[in-house]
Amino acid sequence: MQFAEQLALSDRGLHYGDGLFETMAVAAGRVRLLSRHVQRLTHGAARLAIALPDRAGLEAALQQAAETLGEGVLKLIVTRGSGGRGYAPPDNAEPTLVLLRYPQQLPTLTDAQEGLVVRLCDLTLARQPILAGIKHLNRLEYVLARAEWSEPEIAEGLLFDSQGELIEAVTSNVFIVKGGRVFTPYLDQCGVAGVMRAEVLACAARLDVAAEETRLFLDDVLCADEVFLTNSLHGIRPVRALHGQREWAVGPLLTQRLQHEFWSAL
Amino acid sequence: MQFAEQLALSDRGLHYGDGLFETMAVAAGRVRLLSRHVQRLTHGAARLAIALPDRAGLEAALQQAAETLGEGVLKLIVTRGSGGRGYAPPDNAEPTLVLLRYPQQLPTLTDAQEGLVVRLCDLTLARQPILAGIKHLNRLEYVLARAEWSEPEIAEGLLFDSQGELIEAVTSNVFIVKGGRVFTPYLDQCGVAGVMRAEVLACAARLDVAAEETRLFLDDVLCADEVFLTNSLHGIRPVRALHGQREWAVGPLLTQRLQHEFWSAL
Repeated sequence: MQFAEQLALSDRGLHYGDGLFETMAVAAGRVRLLSRHVQRLTHGAARLAIALPDRAGLEAALQQAAETLGEGVLKLIVTRGSGGRGYAPPDNAEPTLVLLRYPQQLPTLTDAQEGLVVRLCDLTLARQPILAGIKHLNRLEYVLARAEWSEPEIAEGLLFDSQGELIEAVTSNVFIVKGGRVFTPYLDQCGVAGVMRAEVLACAARLDVAAEETRLFLDDVLCADEVFLTNSLHGIRPVRALHGQREWAVGPLLTQRLQHEFWSAL
Repeated sequence: MQFAEQLALSDRGLHYGDGLFETMAVAAGRVRLLSRHVQRLTHGAARLAIALPDRAGLEAALQQAAETLGEGVLKLIVTRGSGGRGYAPPDNAEPTLVLLRYPQQLPTLTDAQEGLVVRLCDLTLARQPILAGIKHLNRLEYVLARAEWSEPEIAEGLLFDSQGELIEAVTSNVFIVKGGRVFTPYLDQCGVAGVMRAEVLACAARLDVAAEETRLFLDDVLCADEVFLTNSLHGIRPVRALHGQREWAVGPLLTQRLQHEFWSAL
């Protein structure tokens, strides 16, 4: 498995965002949720018709990088390769694999238990089923949504689509708890299907908690018993306030149970 | 003006498609429509809040590259710069400028007079007003649309949005001629506002031909007296067939007049 030392200026990742990425937490020399990450990448590559290297080799190379890193974040970018004038790729395009290593302390369960303050983003996500769910490199909407606020006390922004449906947050998926059940938006029109989102659905199943995908709107957030966000680096984070609109206790009903289930299974 | 010799692996152009590009025709050592290209880039940079270098310096650097190239294509990519974990850019992000030089023979008026065969793309463009019109680096929709066909006799694919409105073609803007007037789609929901599109509207004004932006649908294409496509490299190209559905004479009513007006003003 060869990771690129530098990027050709003709790479289609740069020219078109023609590729995918995964951001992975590494703790104690192991990639958390490695097989889920590789599975999502494989699914995305199939959707974009990018020829990935074999899965076992990729997992081994990531695991080896994790051993060297110890603790931190690995970001893998896979592009369709070189070419860059003309949308049709050259016949001989070979995928480019870039691996970035960020040594850092990972957030702990204690960090997550503080709860988050979130806001509503003004930007609405476009509906594009052909790209929905996969973690591709066309991320300008998220860059612009994240640029909407700079207050450090606001950790995340909730994103709705052009029809007013709740989709996710800028770097997280979103769940609500209502009446003892857990709900999260469908991601068939837009949004990124996070590996932690899938893991939370698995945790809920192990706890015999009903969890389902559904259509959610702002009112569902405002009326929720609990709201929490998930991503690979932070795990599960309860929302303690929607800035200026609503506050919540920090996950006493179900969110804390899911947090403990996730951390104990790591 | 410093163009990058290589791209940092942390560049936001790669990570998010966080940038813009221009593809420019160079003939006889000059960039065609240079001020229109720089104007669009400036507008796009303002929309994305990317700090461009000063316009005069940029035009001079492009013109200098054109003199060296003689004939061919220049592709300029401007990204927000380095930083690639976290959508919020670092405070000190400095834009990256990449200039690619492609020596080649440019298409001539004679080439354009052959007329094109086009098809309808299955992919529909998502509506995202915040990105509409600008030539940003999030181009996966176009990559996937272009992958829909491989027949060399089909030069272009018409793209509609999720509401069924005609928007453009994969690498061109689209115009129809009807009743002695010229129409082209609004680009306020999606699509790229081409510099040739603006130039054609200016050519029509000089010829006293009525030309306007409007909402167009497939029926308007099928009932059009003429259809033509425009882009910076090919200028104005009449469509001679919508594959399997309709044929046209090659622009006798208005398209040829616009072609001659464009070429004589170069």
